[in-house]
Amino acid sequence: MPLSPEQQAEIDAERAAPRETLRATAPGMERHLYTAIPVLDHGFVRVVDYMGDDAAICQAARVSYGRGTKSVSNDEGLIRYLMRHWHSTPFEMCEIKLHVKLPIFVARQWIRHRTANVNEYSARYSILDREFYVPEPEHLAAQSALNHQGRGETLSGAEADRVLRILRDDAGSAYDHYAEMISTEGQQGLARELARMNLPANIYTQWYWKVDLHNLLHFLRLRADTHAQYEIRVYADAICDLVRDWVPAAYAAFEDYRLGGAQLSGKGMDCIRRMLKGEAVTQESSGMSKGEWREFQALLDGPSA
Amino acid sequence: MPLSPEQQAEIDAERAAPRETLRATAPGMERHLYTAIPVLDHGFVRVVDYMGDDAAICQAARVSYGRGTKSVSNDEGLIRYLMRHWHSTPFEMCEIKLHVKLPIFVARQWIRHRTANVNEYSARYSILDREFYVPEPEHLAAQSALNHQGRGETLSGAEADRVLRILRDDAGSAYDHYAEMISTEGQQGLARELARMNLPANIYTQWYWKVDLHNLLHFLRLRADTHAQYEIRVYADAICDLVRDWVPAAYAAFEDYRLGGAQLSGKGMDCIRRMLKGEAVTQESSGMSKGEWREFQALLDGPSA
Amino acid sequence: MPLSPEQQAEIDAERAAPRETLRATAPGMERHLYTAIPVLDHGFVRVVDYMGDDAAICQAARVSYGRGTKSVSNDEGLIRYLMRHWHSTPFEMCEIKLHVKLPIFVARQWIRHRTANVNEYSARYSILDREFYVPEPEHLAAQSALNHQGRGETLSGAEADRVLRILRDDAGSAYDHYAEMISTEGQQGLARELARMNLPANIYTQWYWKVDLHNLLHFLRLRADTHAQYEIRVYADAICDLVRDWVPAAYAAFEDYRLGGAQLSGKGMDCIRRMLKGEAVTQESSGMSKGEWREFQALLDGPSA
Amino acid sequence: MPLSPEQQAEIDAERAAPRETLRATAPGMERHLYTAIPVLDHGFVRVVDYMGDDAAICQAARVSYGRGTKSVSNDEGLIRYLMRHWHSTPFEMCEIKLHVKLPIFVARQWIRHRTANVNEYSARYSILDREFYVPEPEHLAAQSALNHQGRGETLSGAEADRVLRILRDDAGSAYDHYAEMISTEGQQGLARELARMNLPANIYTQWYWKVDLHNLLHFLRLRADTHAQYEIRVYADAICDLVRDWVPAAYAAFEDYRLGGAQLSGKGMDCIRRMLKGEAVTQESSGMSKGEWREFQALLDGPSA
Repeated sequence: MPLSPEQQAEIDAERAAPRETLRATAPGMERHLYTAIPVLDHGFVRVVDYMGDDAAICQAARVSYGRGTKSVSNDEGLIRYLMRHWHSTPFEMCEIKLHVKLPIFVARQWIRHRTANVNEYSARYSILDREFYVPEPEHLAAQSALNHQGRGETLSGAEADRVLRILRDDAGSAYDHYAEMISTEGQQGLARELARMNLPANIYTQWYWKVDLHNLLHFLRLRADTHAQYEIRVYADAICDLVRDWVPAAYAAFEDYRLGGAQLSGKGMDCIRRMLKGEAVTQESSGMSKGEWREFQALLDGPSA
Repeated sequence: MPLSPEQQAEIDAERAAPRETLRATAPGMERHLYTAIPVLDHGFVRVVDYMGDDAAICQAARVSYGRGTKSVSNDEGLIRYLMRHWHSTPFEMCEIKLHVKLPIFVARQWIRHRTANVNEYSARYSILDREFYVPEPEHLAAQSALNHQGRGETLSGAEADRVLRILRDDAGSAYDHYAEMISTEGQQGLARELARMNLPANIYTQWYWKVDLHNLLHFLRLRADTHAQYEIRVYADAICDLVRDWVPAAYAAFEDYRLGGAQLSGKGMDCIRRMLKGEAVTQESSGMSKGEWREFQALLDGPSA
Repeated sequence: MPLSPEQQAEIDAERAAPRETLRATAPGMERHLYTAIPVLDHGFVRVVDYMGDDAAICQAARVSYGRGTKSVSNDEGLIRYLMRHWHSTPFEMCEIKLHVKLPIFVARQWIRHRTANVNEYSARYSILDREFYVPEPEHLAAQSALNHQGRGETLSGAEADRVLRILRDDAGSAYDHYAEMISTEGQQGLARELARMNLPANIYTQWYWKVDLHNLLHFLRLRADTHAQYEIRVYADAICDLVRDWVPAAYAAFEDYRLGGAQLSGKGMDCIRRMLKGEAVTQESSGMSKGEWREFQALLDGPSA
Repeated sequence: MPLSPEQQAEIDAERAAPRETLRATAPGMERHLYTAIPVLDHGFVRVVDYMGDDAAICQAARVSYGRGTKSVSNDEGLIRYLMRHWHSTPFEMCEIKLHVKLPIFVARQWIRHRTANVNEYSARYSILDREFYVPEPEHLAAQSALNHQGRGETLSGAEADRVLRILRDDAGSAYDHYAEMISTEGQQGLARELARMNLPANIYTQWYWKVDLHNLLHFLRLRADTHAQYEIRVYADAICDLVRDWVPAAYAAFEDYRLGGAQLSGKGMDCIRRMLKGEAVTQESSGMSKGEWREFQALLDGPSA
């Protein structure tokens, strides 16, 4: 249960008091504001604020004075054109601010996307809560034998039990010792900035994360991908749902041109042209390495294959 | 007159339709939204959107769930603390989007601040308007004899007249030729992306400019400074007025710690300590160069001197 | 003639004095160092410094202690893998510093790429040289009738003559007036920061531009593209030649996966799959707009078509 | 012992083979290249590459063709001027690439400085080494009673012993379980990307970190400060020593204007002016809060007080 009654009360208070504004509003996003969308066992994503909507993308692309008299279908066509031709600046004109609760090992992947603003809960200043990520049994995967940074089959039986017990016990014991070290009962009490070093990477932290739509879509493209680690992908998936409701036209273009699309090499395009002329191209005649050819075949087979 | 009736009508339409939102609103900023604040002879600054307010800075610094139950005076104290200790990330949680009309030579200085999002009116795609900046006579300054990148006294008499006439005539003639070259009346018509090269640096362009509050304050600190060129300073001054109404506590802290404050060197601090003990420090005994000593004296004399 | 004898002498002095270093060196780049490669009528590109080589990309990707004992072919395979899977950080570990002389209207396009470091010659502080870009007759193109931001056929006859005369005369006259206004002969002399506003956008400026390889390749992908304006594309082409000699493996991967490759949408991939199964897909059955379908057909036809 | 014999051999091989280059070299930095400077119990900083020197800063500021005929003392004066007047772009023209080994909780602070390039050792792909930071007894500090994010006195006696034992035992036990979970002996073996979540924040990681001199100095200003956590400050101190040898003039200016200098508020400057005229200013008459006044007094007392 990620939120305390006090935290829920603060959220409810925010949602209870609509204000008047002259700014652009996105009705689909207003519905989500402040609500904590659960992710993993103790995490969440909450929209704290947003700026702009589909029309704001077009307004900036046109450097116009008002919202424009153009029809919605014109706006959709323009947005598709901008996405297709890699025009990034109009999408940068929308911004979103999220409050995210996430395990530290996920936070460490996330922060590698540098073009964003971050305020993280400080474990120098404050005491972290006793909350740790422990995977559901169905997400307890073995190391992939093929892919050095991937997962294989799900662990089963005694091995799965042992892993879950280790993760739970070690986290609990590390936290007990953390609490014991910082305690000032009958002792000086270790500095918080030092005691935190005993805590494992599955403890939860939280941050405010603010990013523009262009950079958010780039993040989603990499992290909502099937190659991303499951534990960050579920956050990306939750954010995809928010973005779809916020800027539906931009999200639809993103789905078609990025998530559902493919980047083909010169060699790949050449193979396709030869295949369409009836040639039976093989890996040998393609000029690709075995790894590239395998990825190319997977693309031609399509997502359902 | 910077706005056409159509443009004014678009702005009026935007201002006529308040919407409901659950987001934080800044009443001081709502008053300014969309209104074009005139700058120079044909330029303006218009707020198109904003995100956050003073409370949002504190909310991010505390990574809190709601707006907090803290009093306004607590928020002010926290904001002053954050500003004094160079905490930049909480200020990055506020964002502003401006529509600016400005001469190209000002735009070229402005764009050197890279941490912002920009969509500029495209002279490859569109035809620029016949609007040029020509200084008011009182801003027609001579080159400074002391400072290579500064202004001296105001030009007077025949010289001033001659300069104004040159600026007006050359701009007009360059624009006539621009229009003549792109015309398709009885000729092919030169590509716009080429014809624009004939236009002088005082022609007006426009852009959407989006920036977070931390980077905006950095921009204002450099460009609202007395050493900044007058033609960009007037834009910075106009934006300062907007920021004061948007985030009053953050702006007050900025005024005290940045605009009204001073960065002293180790040598400068050492001199002050010796002076406060009664020593009569001279340039020779200060360890400073002549230029540094002159700037140091000006600081001790204060802004009114 | 872009360089004065003094400037050439400074370059020659730099090239005459090899030094010893323990850093990685790229022999292909050492050959180019400091030499000014002519671009347009008065511009150039000069490599001032560089950091890293192909091996440095792999070294960073492996976070290794030395240059590694891996063979060159292993390095090439790794670089192709990194490029194919959009791993950007290893390419960011190489850096280049260029000195570029370019017309102001080209500089204004260039600076939109914000992830770079720039020091530009200051027209507030210094006096600009009397050098203007005037296109060769074969690059004097008409506005495209189809594409709002493109070029059509080359101008011919009297129209071409008239355009060239206008560009030359207006630039000369604007510069004469610039020189006259800043002159202190018998007058005060207008401040340089003001006088520059009279100069047209085809006057040359110069800057130092420093960028990492990842962001440079992104710049080249957009600006060496056939849709880029000719006047910036020639700079991108000159830089492509430098990069090919600097990091041959990274450049080869870039050519295959970016310059020669294609980004296909989900709809496009779906069409290809149907076509390969023998279906005769039309624009109507593709789900694409007419514009998208035209671009898709051009991709399938290939670059030679 | 941070380096294995193999790693040391790779470093020795790099240092054994000087190459010829036409680029600027910094003799003070060549001495440090590749050598691992020990930091904390298992960490280090190694210079992998650098670009530029003091002269390169001036060369960029002047946008010059060669190294310039200006004397070294002219260069020093220019560098001091640039630093005093917050000109950041010339300092951005120097770049450094470091290989750093550091505990994860230090890495998490470090990465908050976003304007840098990073390649970190991947615990998804590889197995982390069994190396943990355990503080020396003299750095085992109690939580400060005054400052929420600071340290108080050193722990002593049984409390210190208990803390050290906990840190050592928990780290060892967490690593044993990590190794046990990923083992494929008689079991499937947990995916590395999951097993790492059991490891505490004092385990060591490594990365390549590349940054320009301007942003590096900003990092050093915050992290070599007495308010920075000890465990990151020792890294900053080690890098300060490197920078002093690399760009001596820039480092001297940085020491005077940033490390040894002070940012005073408008209120602070006003107090100093009044004090120099003989007024006995108190906290009440200063307009400052108690916290500000305490910090202001500390500045006037100076670093030795």
